Amino acid sequence: MSSSWGNNIRISIFGESHGPAIGVVLDGLPAGEPVNMDALAALMSRRAPGRNRFSTQRRESDVPRILSGLHEGFTTGSPLCAIIENSDQHSKDYGDMKRLVRPGHADYTGYIRYSGYNDIRGGGHFSGRLTAPLVFAGALAIQILRRRGISVGGHIFSIGGVRDLPFDPVRLTGEQLEQVIAKPFPVLDNSAGEQMMAEIDEAREQQDSVGGVVECAAVGVPAGIGSPMFDGLENRIASLLFGIPAVKGVEFGAGFDAASMRGSICNDPFIIEEKDGSVKTLTNHHGGILGGISSGMPILLRSAFKPTPSIAHQQRTVNYDGTSQEILSVQGRHDPCIVLRAVPCVEACLALVILDSLLEGGNPNGFKNTQAAD
Amino acid sequence: MSSSWGNNIRISIFGESHGPAIGVVLDGLPAGEPVNMDALAALMSRRAPGRNRFSTQRRESDVPRILSGLHEGFTTGSPLCAIIENSDQHSKDYGDMKRLVRPGHADYTGYIRYSGYNDIRGGGHFSGRLTAPLVFAGALAIQILRRRGISVGGHIFSIGGVRDLPFDPVRLTGEQLEQVIAKPFPVLDNSAGEQMMAEIDEAREQQDSVGGVVECAAVGVPAGIGSPMFDGLENRIASLLFGIPAVKGVEFGAGFDAASMRGSICNDPFIIEEKDGSVKTLTNHHGGILGGISSGMPILLRSAFKPTPSIAHQQRTVNYDGTSQEILSVQGRHDPCIVLRAVPCVEACLALVILDSLLEGGNPNGFKNTQAAD
Amino acid sequence: MSSSWGNNIRISIFGESHGPAIGVVLDGLPAGEPVNMDALAALMSRRAPGRNRFSTQRRESDVPRILSGLHEGFTTGSPLCAIIENSDQHSKDYGDMKRLVRPGHADYTGYIRYSGYNDIRGGGHFSGRLTAPLVFAGALAIQILRRRGISVGGHIFSIGGVRDLPFDPVRLTGEQLEQVIAKPFPVLDNSAGEQMMAEIDEAREQQDSVGGVVECAAVGVPAGIGSPMFDGLENRIASLLFGIPAVKGVEFGAGFDAASMRGSICNDPFIIEEKDGSVKTLTNHHGGILGGISSGMPILLRSAFKPTPSIAHQQRTVNYDGTSQEILSVQGRHDPCIVLRAVPCVEACLALVILDSLLEGGNPNGFKNTQAAD
Amino acid sequence: MSSSWGNNIRISIFGESHGPAIGVVLDGLPAGEPVNMDALAALMSRRAPGRNRFSTQRRESDVPRILSGLHEGFTTGSPLCAIIENSDQHSKDYGDMKRLVRPGHADYTGYIRYSGYNDIRGGGHFSGRLTAPLVFAGALAIQILRRRGISVGGHIFSIGGVRDLPFDPVRLTGEQLEQVIAKPFPVLDNSAGEQMMAEIDEAREQQDSVGGVVECAAVGVPAGIGSPMFDGLENRIASLLFGIPAVKGVEFGAGFDAASMRGSICNDPFIIEEKDGSVKTLTNHHGGILGGISSGMPILLRSAFKPTPSIAHQQRTVNYDGTSQEILSVQGRHDPCIVLRAVPCVEACLALVILDSLLEGGNPNGFKNTQAAD
Repeated sequence: MSSSWGNNIRISIFGESHGPAIGVVLDGLPAGEPVNMDALAALMSRRAPGRNRFSTQRRESDVPRILSGLHEGFTTGSPLCAIIENSDQHSKDYGDMKRLVRPGHADYTGYIRYSGYNDIRGGGHFSGRLTAPLVFAGALAIQILRRRGISVGGHIFSIGGVRDLPFDPVRLTGEQLEQVIAKPFPVLDNSAGEQMMAEIDEAREQQDSVGGVVECAAVGVPAGIGSPMFDGLENRIASLLFGIPAVKGVEFGAGFDAASMRGSICNDPFIIEEKDGSVKTLTNHHGGILGGISSGMPILLRSAFKPTPSIAHQQRTVNYDGTSQEILSVQGRHDPCIVLRAVPCVEACLALVILDSLLEGGNPNGFKNTQAAD
Repeated sequence: MSSSWGNNIRISIFGESHGPAIGVVLDGLPAGEPVNMDALAALMSRRAPGRNRFSTQRRESDVPRILSGLHEGFTTGSPLCAIIENSDQHSKDYGDMKRLVRPGHADYTGYIRYSGYNDIRGGGHFSGRLTAPLVFAGALAIQILRRRGISVGGHIFSIGGVRDLPFDPVRLTGEQLEQVIAKPFPVLDNSAGEQMMAEIDEAREQQDSVGGVVECAAVGVPAGIGSPMFDGLENRIASLLFGIPAVKGVEFGAGFDAASMRGSICNDPFIIEEKDGSVKTLTNHHGGILGGISSGMPILLRSAFKPTPSIAHQQRTVNYDGTSQEILSVQGRHDPCIVLRAVPCVEACLALVILDSLLEGGNPNGFKNTQAAD
Repeated sequence: MSSSWGNNIRISIFGESHGPAIGVVLDGLPAGEPVNMDALAALMSRRAPGRNRFSTQRRESDVPRILSGLHEGFTTGSPLCAIIENSDQHSKDYGDMKRLVRPGHADYTGYIRYSGYNDIRGGGHFSGRLTAPLVFAGALAIQILRRRGISVGGHIFSIGGVRDLPFDPVRLTGEQLEQVIAKPFPVLDNSAGEQMMAEIDEAREQQDSVGGVVECAAVGVPAGIGSPMFDGLENRIASLLFGIPAVKGVEFGAGFDAASMRGSICNDPFIIEEKDGSVKTLTNHHGGILGGISSGMPILLRSAFKPTPSIAHQQRTVNYDGTSQEILSVQGRHDPCIVLRAVPCVEACLALVILDSLLEGGNPNGFKNTQAAD
Repeated sequence: MSSSWGNNIRISIFGESHGPAIGVVLDGLPAGEPVNMDALAALMSRRAPGRNRFSTQRRESDVPRILSGLHEGFTTGSPLCAIIENSDQHSKDYGDMKRLVRPGHADYTGYIRYSGYNDIRGGGHFSGRLTAPLVFAGALAIQILRRRGISVGGHIFSIGGVRDLPFDPVRLTGEQLEQVIAKPFPVLDNSAGEQMMAEIDEAREQQDSVGGVVECAAVGVPAGIGSPMFDGLENRIASLLFGIPAVKGVEFGAGFDAASMRGSICNDPFIIEEKDGSVKTLTNHHGGILGGISSGMPILLRSAFKPTPSIAHQQRTVNYDGTSQEILSVQGRHDPCIVLRAVPCVEACLALVILDSLLEGGNPNGFKNTQAAD
């Protein structure tokens, strides 16, 4: 079992890059939630390829068709299934791939795992294209969260060696998140963004690719969401994020930097906000999560993406049979950097975990049905 | 639901730091596996406090009592429960803690989550003491894996700013893992170890604490273990690791460094080993996992631990009611650095995931019953 | 979460009776299993409406379109999604239903559960039509089981007060199962079948409906499949069967009759078969399952179906608001007896549980990959 | 994985009949629920052996020791573990059992499933003794439900051929449930009870045993609890009930009788209660559940128990090796009828499912935290 996730909502993603269609079933969505299809399409378009010079020219209509679970604009409470047809398949581009495993891809491991029966065209079920239904699911979650005062957004934290400014871990607002995700190249520091674009262009010119880091945040999450040990927010966010191809690391709050801190610095002092008497922390090295449970501070994470493995560079590899060593150059249209399109994927994961955790039964701060308020 | 994990084996951890006992139920263990109680105790003693000057003097007998699932030295296939009595509780040391939330701990978030009904003494269910049953479970997994040629081991990768040498990601062997975990202070470079100890001593003298990073590896894992998307090895390892208190980041292979690499460097070329004709990679930036599935190369991860939040330093905080701002100095015996004792915890998580993934039904490279071979 | 089931394979069913499409995702199917589309269609046609005078004239093409998980005739190991378009919707027939809850249906309980947001047309997600994807999933399972020597089949055990002969619980063979399921009206005693048809005709003429019992069996299941307590075969079969609308009871082996037996009769003596030295039981009151685990004897169950609740008879009911008492007569085309079409649904449930339990990791008698044998 | 159950609470039962101890972990219990230990002991004593002439004289102290999850009389929200020591083990009584499989027990199937490594003394993990922790868990659920106006209770519906009166499916009250469960021999018709006792006495004198049926009900469950398809109340109750050894059938409302009804009789007309304007049904053949969801009417089920398989009667059987046919007479102290002690087990299952379903996130009629009301 591989492509199914969640405790209180359950997403089940299906499809292969060059099969008839891809899609997702969301089971356990609360009933009576209005779905704004335009907002949904807008979020999905941020992930879609072909938008600009930094993403593959493979064109995908990527218009999800909702088969169930939505009636007269509202969720029905029954499983919601959306599919996206695979219209633009250039399987011939992938002809050489039938014989040679691509370094950095799951070609070899998938071949072993499935005894050679998996569909390898375009990466099959391992393809980055499968993040489209993930983003669809996340976009639904984001809408449900927004109606409860919770905003989720991310930006490009780094490309190669070029770094953006970080989110302000204490004063970050939903407005700031909206502003950055509205940008075509979502960075806080536009001049850093220019350098990042130059870095990507350089990698492309060298028939190479480059990695990067996405920073993502949620504000407005009430304190007390999540559970200790293995159902903590961190565990569950990580368990989703590593489902995005190319993610090799995840950190929360100060993350790996915390490892070189002293406790007297890393501990975030608790204070009482003068304006409303609420409990806050002065700093936010904990990234809004303590013991797996939200503290009410912004939730902050960073996710590291390795460079796109598909490069025209010549690489050593072997054939699927493991009988000969060969040289491979991956042709076709590939993003020299996946990080731009990965931002909404990370947002989707964060939103899905927050919604799933809000829906955890018996939590006094948990999900409130909006229709009950009508 | 919080403290239960696993698809094919399921661990269910229970207990509170100052309650009568802590423990774990393991459901789904294969029958007929011999259990070596001495090896089990040896692994658990690496996590136990009071071993040396770097860990708290709180003494715990930490001798697990097995209540079920073991008969005449072999697993029965029925749920195995082990409990550890909480013998050495100095609840009075924690008297002040009843009123003030400790920065960096889950006191505040737990209070909100459980409406004040959770047992806050010593951190309750959030206590690091709850890693004892996790290590117990991991020690069982390690024994089962070893009989199938799989070794798991870790070392201290860094303390504060002091770094050990990394594992050799390509040539790492089970013998090397055994050697490093046999050391009282498990590092590859002993002189780095000396500096780390000095760093910890300095933190203690300053009534402070310091964080660090654990690197952990598994060798001998066959290719083809794991599943794509959300049941990948990375997802599942992360979902367990963040259950260890103080973990703030997890990375695999090149991890965050991959984000600043070019694809032509990061991609690991496939080669055929001359000696046995097996498929390997020349480098191992992928950390032995591609598309969530093992490649047959060493599995490599690093986990960042924040500094112990319990410090005698004076810190700003608030009372549980959130009505007054106060100054807190955490008394009692606390490790100035938890990283040394965290090494077997990380090993336990890695071993449990590998065993659980081996046991996934329908995997052609999956679990083989040993008794069938008799 | 409602419509998702399974430990080792996971089925996720979606759709509403009058929505765009219904379907199912199967995650965790083993790779490399050939799929015979004709055999699959044949099984599905046994459930389809409009086949004869005993089932609704609502015509459904019911041709599943496979979107993923199947490549060149073999399962890929990735999630397999199949959808069935809803082509023949006469929503106008259901006009009155918008105001009044139908007795015996889930209209009222669904309305309360989903605050009125569920799609009530044709029963929505509660519709019997949703058994089509269940049967699709079961048909895949049946093919996989058959390649491993396991046959599954059922017959109409009773309609109203008319009873068929029971399966021979000890000597039942796969051939006998194949013979009975090949019949258009699957009974062992054809004269009982005639009486049943008369019973159904009478009910129809009276604008009424009638219930019945389905008996279902599996032969060839190896001993040792299943697990004690809550993952026993009985638990899991029941947990699926009650997902078929109208099922109100489930029993295994002697079932409710066992409650009036003496132990000396009910206990099945163990014997050694002369011909092959295998262990069998002389009788089979245990229905092939002891302690949740298969004994190697035929697995036998009976499932009780209440009469179709949609009847033209005048019935007392209330409006959805619960503000007025009214009289309702359900118009439209409805089966006077659902039992005939329910037989393949019961078979599907039994087959899915056996496959899921075979795939349980660590079971020495569990699933064998066929491709490994090639 | 076998002995773990639940979506929103998770029970994990462990132990073997003659091992050191048995017990249960409950994860996901809401925090702040007061636990009345006397009420808990009272319910458990109804299951305990040795109470009267109808149950085994094996004496068990059966006093659960709570290791975690309870603090100052309230649930903490952390996993609650309770253990019961196995004090009175007469393993020698079971000496012959080491060689011969007992008909009607799981000895043979367990041996195959676990390759002979399971602890067979007293049935091991398959023993009826393992229902003690189940009843403990159910007793906690019953207390939590009662504070929300929900009562659960059962009676002996039949022993052998002797039948009690049924519960009134429409007018049943919590008071009536309390009255019948307070009886030492819980029947509605005391004269039927006398005949049942005679039936049991006769079976004992004949060195035989006898089966029976338990009827169980819940009143006060709000409408709208549960979910369609596989998470329906019926599915989930059945999935627990078949975990009680000896259960061979489960039915809801009219159950198997519904199969011989006409729809015009079986359908329960909806009406509006004059006194409070609430929606009810005139009859209750649906057993309080439609489409898996509670209707607000009493929930009603019956569960069939086969006769105790341990009888002194001589029976044909084989040895574990399957190499010789032998005659076995099961010695030791065994209940001639398990049904009396099974009543609280059935109640426990029903209560656990209702609590688990109440805790399902996003249900507008779901669980309300009581402390929130303080």
